[in-house]
Amino acid sequence: MTYTVAVSGASGYAGGEILRLLASHPDIEIRTVTAHSNAGQPLIQHQPHLRSLAHLTLQDTTPEILAGHDIVFLALPHGQSGQYTDALGDVPLVIDAGADHRLTSQDSWDAFYGGHFHEPWAYGVPELIVGGEKQRESLRSAKRIAAPGCNASTVSLSLVPGVAAGVIDPRDIVSVLAVGPSGAGKSLKPHLLGSELLGTANPYAVGGTHRHIPEIQQALRTAGADDARISFTPVLVPMARGILATSTAPIVPGTSDAQIREAWESAYGDETFVQLLPEGQFPRTADVLGANTALMGLAIDRAANRVTVVTAVDNLVKGTAGAAIQSMNLALGLPEGRALTVNGVAP
Amino acid sequence: MTYTVAVSGASGYAGGEILRLLASHPDIEIRTVTAHSNAGQPLIQHQPHLRSLAHLTLQDTTPEILAGHDIVFLALPHGQSGQYTDALGDVPLVIDAGADHRLTSQDSWDAFYGGHFHEPWAYGVPELIVGGEKQRESLRSAKRIAAPGCNASTVSLSLVPGVAAGVIDPRDIVSVLAVGPSGAGKSLKPHLLGSELLGTANPYAVGGTHRHIPEIQQALRTAGADDARISFTPVLVPMARGILATSTAPIVPGTSDAQIREAWESAYGDETFVQLLPEGQFPRTADVLGANTALMGLAIDRAANRVTVVTAVDNLVKGTAGAAIQSMNLALGLPEGRALTVNGVAP
Amino acid sequence: MTYTVAVSGASGYAGGEILRLLASHPDIEIRTVTAHSNAGQPLIQHQPHLRSLAHLTLQDTTPEILAGHDIVFLALPHGQSGQYTDALGDVPLVIDAGADHRLTSQDSWDAFYGGHFHEPWAYGVPELIVGGEKQRESLRSAKRIAAPGCNASTVSLSLVPGVAAGVIDPRDIVSVLAVGPSGAGKSLKPHLLGSELLGTANPYAVGGTHRHIPEIQQALRTAGADDARISFTPVLVPMARGILATSTAPIVPGTSDAQIREAWESAYGDETFVQLLPEGQFPRTADVLGANTALMGLAIDRAANRVTVVTAVDNLVKGTAGAAIQSMNLALGLPEGRALTVNGVAP
Amino acid sequence: MTYTVAVSGASGYAGGEILRLLASHPDIEIRTVTAHSNAGQPLIQHQPHLRSLAHLTLQDTTPEILAGHDIVFLALPHGQSGQYTDALGDVPLVIDAGADHRLTSQDSWDAFYGGHFHEPWAYGVPELIVGGEKQRESLRSAKRIAAPGCNASTVSLSLVPGVAAGVIDPRDIVSVLAVGPSGAGKSLKPHLLGSELLGTANPYAVGGTHRHIPEIQQALRTAGADDARISFTPVLVPMARGILATSTAPIVPGTSDAQIREAWESAYGDETFVQLLPEGQFPRTADVLGANTALMGLAIDRAANRVTVVTAVDNLVKGTAGAAIQSMNLALGLPEGRALTVNGVAP
Repeated sequence: MTYTVAVSGASGYAGGEILRLLASHPDIEIRTVTAHSNAGQPLIQHQPHLRSLAHLTLQDTTPEILAGHDIVFLALPHGQSGQYTDALGDVPLVIDAGADHRLTSQDSWDAFYGGHFHEPWAYGVPELIVGGEKQRESLRSAKRIAAPGCNASTVSLSLVPGVAAGVIDPRDIVSVLAVGPSGAGKSLKPHLLGSELLGTANPYAVGGTHRHIPEIQQALRTAGADDARISFTPVLVPMARGILATSTAPIVPGTSDAQIREAWESAYGDETFVQLLPEGQFPRTADVLGANTALMGLAIDRAANRVTVVTAVDNLVKGTAGAAIQSMNLALGLPEGRALTVNGVAP
Repeated sequence: MTYTVAVSGASGYAGGEILRLLASHPDIEIRTVTAHSNAGQPLIQHQPHLRSLAHLTLQDTTPEILAGHDIVFLALPHGQSGQYTDALGDVPLVIDAGADHRLTSQDSWDAFYGGHFHEPWAYGVPELIVGGEKQRESLRSAKRIAAPGCNASTVSLSLVPGVAAGVIDPRDIVSVLAVGPSGAGKSLKPHLLGSELLGTANPYAVGGTHRHIPEIQQALRTAGADDARISFTPVLVPMARGILATSTAPIVPGTSDAQIREAWESAYGDETFVQLLPEGQFPRTADVLGANTALMGLAIDRAANRVTVVTAVDNLVKGTAGAAIQSMNLALGLPEGRALTVNGVAP
Repeated sequence: MTYTVAVSGASGYAGGEILRLLASHPDIEIRTVTAHSNAGQPLIQHQPHLRSLAHLTLQDTTPEILAGHDIVFLALPHGQSGQYTDALGDVPLVIDAGADHRLTSQDSWDAFYGGHFHEPWAYGVPELIVGGEKQRESLRSAKRIAAPGCNASTVSLSLVPGVAAGVIDPRDIVSVLAVGPSGAGKSLKPHLLGSELLGTANPYAVGGTHRHIPEIQQALRTAGADDARISFTPVLVPMARGILATSTAPIVPGTSDAQIREAWESAYGDETFVQLLPEGQFPRTADVLGANTALMGLAIDRAANRVTVVTAVDNLVKGTAGAAIQSMNLALGLPEGRALTVNGVAP
Repeated sequence: MTYTVAVSGASGYAGGEILRLLASHPDIEIRTVTAHSNAGQPLIQHQPHLRSLAHLTLQDTTPEILAGHDIVFLALPHGQSGQYTDALGDVPLVIDAGADHRLTSQDSWDAFYGGHFHEPWAYGVPELIVGGEKQRESLRSAKRIAAPGCNASTVSLSLVPGVAAGVIDPRDIVSVLAVGPSGAGKSLKPHLLGSELLGTANPYAVGGTHRHIPEIQQALRTAGADDARISFTPVLVPMARGILATSTAPIVPGTSDAQIREAWESAYGDETFVQLLPEGQFPRTADVLGANTALMGLAIDRAANRVTVVTAVDNLVKGTAGAAIQSMNLALGLPEGRALTVNGVAP
């Protein structure tokens, strides 16, 4: 059967990427695209790369327009999804690319976001270990899915295997991420101008203020970490897309190299979209550009007594839109990787 | 008086930057430039940006050609300086931009470089705290100077104040650096091709293998750290120049925020070329492009129990050639900042 | 049925892109990948983004190894295909991504390439107007296909409609192209280093020396231009992929704006992979990244008496590998766009 | 003596670059910096690279605050200078980096800008040939100076020698420019976002609409071209700064190669900041980054019957702020190159 879809926030980066992926999905009919200030304009005026969707016009983002589809994607600024989700009760499947339904802890929501707290939805990272199984299982029957934060899911995927296996200590994690600016959305802010980003590296949210920190802590908790603490620093670098996350954690005393590597190998050995590279190899973001793949390299640094995991993802695909569609496929009972590619566009 | 200068390795990036800075130095006459395979060719064929030096021709790099100058700069691949330094005994001032004379520990040399061990020279980072004073003092009368490794000096400058003041614990440092490829020199290696670097972030030397690690440990030791351990990960990002180093270390228990900030303020409050930004501000590499400035932001993250220092330098200036010339000025008794700029070229 | 394929030059950029596209082609089995100095190594060591082809090992590039497949792709340096093509007589379909079989004029070959002249093959740009029809027709039954030069096909597609319709004068064409370095291949040349390309624009082959000039002239001749002259300047800019070609030609006196626009609209109105944008709109290379689309904007500048056509392509897709596979699909009687996407990966 | 200076538009890119250059000028005291919405804030908050000017606070841009200085620089959006210039009658020297005082023809102003027409001021490109002499002469006694448009002066410098010498035909010029986005200022427009500019080439103002066209025509007219027509296409490429202009014009029949080359050599042979490269060499924008140099390569393409001139400038220096300060030096009777560098910052 063919599912009808509405995508809100369709003139932005996350919405555009959801559309790019859905455009090649054989079971999906993109029926409606919506926006705010750009409503009334052709989609392609704002997404000129989506040639196959040239026939679509942006409509207003209202509950009435979004209702009546089999699936609704919300790609709205944080804090705006809630007003729609309440009114979309009859829609069989709603997937939110925003943060509103990610956190289970209202305290964390209040501390890092503020505003009305919404109930948590199934978390759209199928490969995460949750208790003894994978997050995937909770997505198979999901009606409401929260796509992950791109930085958060990248770091969580990097470290959860080691935490779940008890080989790294989650109480002193350090993550530093080289990130492209598309993760910040199509926002007209001075520090996101091309002249400010070309040829330079630019840190932000230094010192524990980034909103993805509680989301990582939540993933580590569900993997078994009672007390997860993380020093988290994102750095904007001159690439439109991509996250390269370098995450390190102390080695639990008495753990062998083989035990450490085995933790990641057993977690991801059967996965298509999360891959551990052979020893001594580390990924580049170009290797996963446009792909739904998280590519990971692992080093065991006995001199520093730390495990270092370097993970590359495309923030708009595996970090957002790909995660959303992989989760959608699971929820619909379709092959999990449909419309998603494992090969990146490089060089 | 005017000092005559010879620069070896003049067709490379470090040599070129030494020449760019010396070209505006009123007390210096650039008399000789040398290279290996490019000898016999005009300098400007290899350094087309050095318009004012269009009259110079690259000569062979031999002790005979380098001798007879007041100052000799060696900008050669690691391990090659030694053969010249022995033969330059009569040259009043020799400055090596390579690694050969940086390390005081032969064990470290053997472990990270190998080959013949050379005696350590005065270390060309004037602002470092060494014992109770600054490294500057040892440079005032120096005849032989080792310019620092760019990544090493950036991390050392970031952390030495906290170590010297006893407010951070040097036994569990994590540094992740976004770096431009010019630090790797003009080497014809596949991973340094433009197609491999544009639009992507690329980690290397992950897991404790980078040669700048012992150099950082040495600087931390002279600042008082008996046991300095560092998890060190450099990431190539798409900018020709620049280092943005994110370094974190655990807070020593019982230390107040004021004490922490004071450590860096007192270390650098009087410095021109190492500047601590006001609370909540962090630097971009563009801010120091072409300048001899190390720009630093400090965050105290109590949730992670870590201090985070983000430091931006131009790897070819403050990281290499600027450090060399600042040290030269000190050794010659000239104003320390002559021919060096504090303002970056941005955007 | 499934066709077996061998790809030579599989460790290079053109070969890698052919593989990336073929990997999602339902009718193709990639059986053999070959290289020269890298033979014996895993493909993925050189193409780490091709995750789905991790099982392939690079073999030697010999006629024996290439023979015995249904289709052979040659992605070799110019001048090297000939030695293989003679020995591949039994292979039903051979597609050369090099220049060896593109030119019909031996004089042009001698002037711009030199060495042994090879017979011209069917030219792999289906949308070009040749006489009264499209190049596509000659590809339907082709056994031997020459994929185009990326710059050449971009400029030819830009101008052929106007030449064929007699609305522009081919005797005074000016084309200036912003190009990414991947078009130059994975060559270890100093001017292709990342440090030399990041943050800078770099012209090359200025003044009529570029090898794609005779290929453009040939396309214009088959479209009806007795005498095509072109001032052609490529400029390397800091993007791994992409060509943005700005081409201008004098307006033939007495031609109306409607007639001019109609020439391009009638040429490409029915095409999927060559699209003319509405009046006043012009393409970006990001809009076609990873896609097989040539996107084109047209301006009529009466003050300068010139038509300006700006065309964006991905040099590795529509410029090379996509053109090869589109042509292959035609030759095999498959849907022309199979395994090719029309939507780019942006931002 | 020391001249006091006020710079308006000091939080923008042009204003910032004027300040960067003036900061090293020994005869200048930067007394006042002004802005609009940012008034009241520290300059360094908006120009964090100007470390030596950390003591300055942005004031309101009013005639009263600007008056009372020896020199006033106006770096305001086009059309805004006029309201200030009338009120600054007592200021000995006013230099406008905007377009308001560049054009001598009100018709051109009306056609390309619109709004109130202001009287033309001395044009700040000293090396241009005007009649039998250089533009420099008109600047020696100037009280009011219009700094050039960056694209306009680059193209004018490229072609004026050939026009003045009668070796190229100005009636069919084609110029295509690869330009960095800083030339568009610190404007919050979607197409100037980093995500829209990284990894892509983006044309704008195609087809004869760019405002620098009449400025080029004016320069060519003063060099002797009765009828100058130009097809002009700028392309944004991923570098913060820089212009690489490829300009071609038909060769006047009967002209020898030697005559052509001689035109440029005689025009610029004695110039410091405009340099013609030897035959067969062409410039990169990196070669002039941060420098006041226009670097130029010349090709004679007999097959296309065109001269091609490729010129690299830093749009913020030689294109704007450097031109302004070079002109200021002339007007004050100071050495023309004071505070300006000829060597670029590369790589």
